[in-house]
Amino acid sequence: MIQPFAKPATVPLYVELADSLQQLVEQGTLRAGHRVPSVRRMALQRDVSISTVLQAYTMLENRGYLEARPQSGYYVRPRLPLDAPEPRMARPMAKPSYVGVTDLTADVLSYALDPAYLSLGAACPAPSLFPNKKLARVMGSAARNDPSLLGRYAMNWAYEPLTREIARRYLQAGAALAHDELVITVGCTEALNLALRAIAKPGDTIAVETPAYFGILQMIQSLNLRVLEIPTDSREGLCLDSFREAIRQNDVKALFVMPTFQNPLGSCMPDEKKEKLYEILTEFDIPAVEDDIYGDIHFSERRPKPLKAWDRDGRVLLCSSFSKTLAPSLRVGWIAPGRYMERVRRLKFTNTLGTPVILQKTISDFLRDGGYDHHLRSIRRAYQNQLHMFSQAILKNFPAGTRLSRPQGGFVLWIELPARVDALKLYQDALKQRITLAPGALFSVKERYKNCLRLNCGIPWADNIAQAIAHVGTLAKQQSGA
Amino acid sequence: MIQPFAKPATVPLYVELADSLQQLVEQGTLRAGHRVPSVRRMALQRDVSISTVLQAYTMLENRGYLEARPQSGYYVRPRLPLDAPEPRMARPMAKPSYVGVTDLTADVLSYALDPAYLSLGAACPAPSLFPNKKLARVMGSAARNDPSLLGRYAMNWAYEPLTREIARRYLQAGAALAHDELVITVGCTEALNLALRAIAKPGDTIAVETPAYFGILQMIQSLNLRVLEIPTDSREGLCLDSFREAIRQNDVKALFVMPTFQNPLGSCMPDEKKEKLYEILTEFDIPAVEDDIYGDIHFSERRPKPLKAWDRDGRVLLCSSFSKTLAPSLRVGWIAPGRYMERVRRLKFTNTLGTPVILQKTISDFLRDGGYDHHLRSIRRAYQNQLHMFSQAILKNFPAGTRLSRPQGGFVLWIELPARVDALKLYQDALKQRITLAPGALFSVKERYKNCLRLNCGIPWADNIAQAIAHVGTLAKQQSGA
Repeated sequence: MIQPFAKPATVPLYVELADSLQQLVEQGTLRAGHRVPSVRRMALQRDVSISTVLQAYTMLENRGYLEARPQSGYYVRPRLPLDAPEPRMARPMAKPSYVGVTDLTADVLSYALDPAYLSLGAACPAPSLFPNKKLARVMGSAARNDPSLLGRYAMNWAYEPLTREIARRYLQAGAALAHDELVITVGCTEALNLALRAIAKPGDTIAVETPAYFGILQMIQSLNLRVLEIPTDSREGLCLDSFREAIRQNDVKALFVMPTFQNPLGSCMPDEKKEKLYEILTEFDIPAVEDDIYGDIHFSERRPKPLKAWDRDGRVLLCSSFSKTLAPSLRVGWIAPGRYMERVRRLKFTNTLGTPVILQKTISDFLRDGGYDHHLRSIRRAYQNQLHMFSQAILKNFPAGTRLSRPQGGFVLWIELPARVDALKLYQDALKQRITLAPGALFSVKERYKNCLRLNCGIPWADNIAQAIAHVGTLAKQQSGA
Repeated sequence: MIQPFAKPATVPLYVELADSLQQLVEQGTLRAGHRVPSVRRMALQRDVSISTVLQAYTMLENRGYLEARPQSGYYVRPRLPLDAPEPRMARPMAKPSYVGVTDLTADVLSYALDPAYLSLGAACPAPSLFPNKKLARVMGSAARNDPSLLGRYAMNWAYEPLTREIARRYLQAGAALAHDELVITVGCTEALNLALRAIAKPGDTIAVETPAYFGILQMIQSLNLRVLEIPTDSREGLCLDSFREAIRQNDVKALFVMPTFQNPLGSCMPDEKKEKLYEILTEFDIPAVEDDIYGDIHFSERRPKPLKAWDRDGRVLLCSSFSKTLAPSLRVGWIAPGRYMERVRRLKFTNTLGTPVILQKTISDFLRDGGYDHHLRSIRRAYQNQLHMFSQAILKNFPAGTRLSRPQGGFVLWIELPARVDALKLYQDALKQRITLAPGALFSVKERYKNCLRLNCGIPWADNIAQAIAHVGTLAKQQSGA
């Protein structure tokens, strides 16, 4: 008989133990400086083997929650208070601008692909965070059980079992979507492309948050669109007053927005603010492309609602993918294009014809019974921990006056260095040590963020990262004269 | 020890036998009306089992080479001479035109996906023609042997072992390409997209053959480009005089061309003509997007050279994929963009970021040791046979005055019905019998080809197809009053 809620086979006992102890630390039950029960005692208490406890303690040590003191045992590690100030909001932009070609972006990305470099530049999580083996097994079975999947022409909008799973998950997140409101795409990148092409024609202006993910700026450039950057708060996201002012003064065709865990800020608009934003969109009759790719990587209890949850008239084109949470290499994303469905379908046909069904089926099978929710919980915790470790190391090593974002989800950090630090030089100097960074200049079409960096914290904390951060800190201090 | 040229495990003995007998028929050694050796005798002659011979004879029966006469044995089937005239070339177009949105195309394609319909409308081969099982095994092994392939971010231009295989094959076909001149794409569709976007901006004019594949017309529309249709001969392809005249009189930004087995005509430009075309391109300094997707499906001995073989200065952007020859659903294609490499790479990044590596590796592993060349030979023969069977059935069933293309490769037929036949009505009437056709109107931005049809012959000949052709023939005769 199948047991309901049976534990997925992927989760080892020591991970469960580590997770539960970590919660006790986070809730304050285990306080900084306190000694945790000895390995032997914990094994008795939890009725597990000694090696399980040892593995769990080592894991928590790696995560930065415990420290081992020789001859004494494991202690809860004191965590530095994050008292650095947060990055400041940018000023509004007077008029829209085309995006200049940046060789820099191509540079940053090519190094990000080079395994000889420690990639703190691209927002790529470490492959070790994903259930690759299990996914490989699921894919193998899917292919073997129905080989004709490989031979049938992929001229499809979506593999229905997958869209049903996605729709079900949005329902849980507070956005009622029917499965046939979705089109499956080649990653979130294609989804954003189709969305922009469905709502704007060459020469049109798109409002974007600033700083903005450089990929969207390049995409806007490639589509011959113009950009109007809207100041964005590092905690609460898009500044609505600025947005309203901007669309009053300019002919803005659409908004591109990441209301939930913006890249690079990690900001999240509160529900009231999302609702308000939707009202403004309605008032000015403007559609919005919502990039929700980090939506499932929330550190709070509840998954924030997407902006799409307020959408009554189909003006929000919701885009996302599994690339940050499950399978970066499979390039399976989606779009819920609302009233633009017909256009998006046609554009999908002319852009890539279809998305490989075997990949859609692999993910759909995994979602159905691969323990995706459990995996999500563990990857959220991993990202949160990594952000914490990176933040602490930056506070310790970077020059005084450095400002730091407090991401509420996702896995990137935004760093504002003292004004005289040139992040581009920092990037070039760090390259010599085979460390890649994403300099702030990439994140705007204006001359902004020259003293800013985005850091990829998608990689599990380790000594080489600590050394890299210390090195970048030293370089920054040299520049700032501190 | 590994035997050189060992037979790939995929080819059953009976297929080999059938292939060799078929050659005897084609060479005239076995003549129409002659009785072939009895099953028992053939088994003795070739030292194979009786069931192998039976399977081979049945296969040749299905392919239309043999017919079984009860109580008498198998006979070489008389083949109708293809004496119908060929379709006529269109007239030149006075000036460029934007493409109108055609709901009809969306219609045709949506029925093509519906398994309840016999899809003679879309150029989709039957899945049974492909080595799906073997490919599924290769994919399963590739995933199991390196699961981290699934977890690594797919921000790549190409999986090198695949581009090396592709480059090697082009070398054999007479076009020297280095592996790093290739970018892997999501099917030929994305390749064509990137190519068009790299060489033209909105409002620019692209010269295309007429009739033209409707997908390219839709793509040109989606990119806000204009089209100038150039008359094309059903045997020898693009009319060079018309092309020269057209670019002399119009500001043409680029040429889109299928020199080898044009869709829908099946025409192939002779080598001298390809060379001449390249000279004209150079003279007027115009780049060409070459769609070579049918290039490997040649019925003559030698694979025709792509236009790219003459390219000395990188003005030919060669595009193709494995969708017609190996794995329609995997969506693995490529582009050799010549001097536009940098632009194409950037566009690939903003369009879909990367092509799933597991799919690239699956195809590359199959090419390396899956018996791809043998598979190509068998699929070429299958397509050629199917075209023959379809052609014969059309000659038998369609009204007098019907003109028919003689494809030299690929698997589509172009049919010009008597002038008074309305192919759109034919399409609608055939739909009622759950048969889809591609009406000629789809293949031009002008009011052309209203009495034309393209037929997908990618499906193995069977009774239901014979019935469908007979039905369409009856409908056409009703319309033509014959």
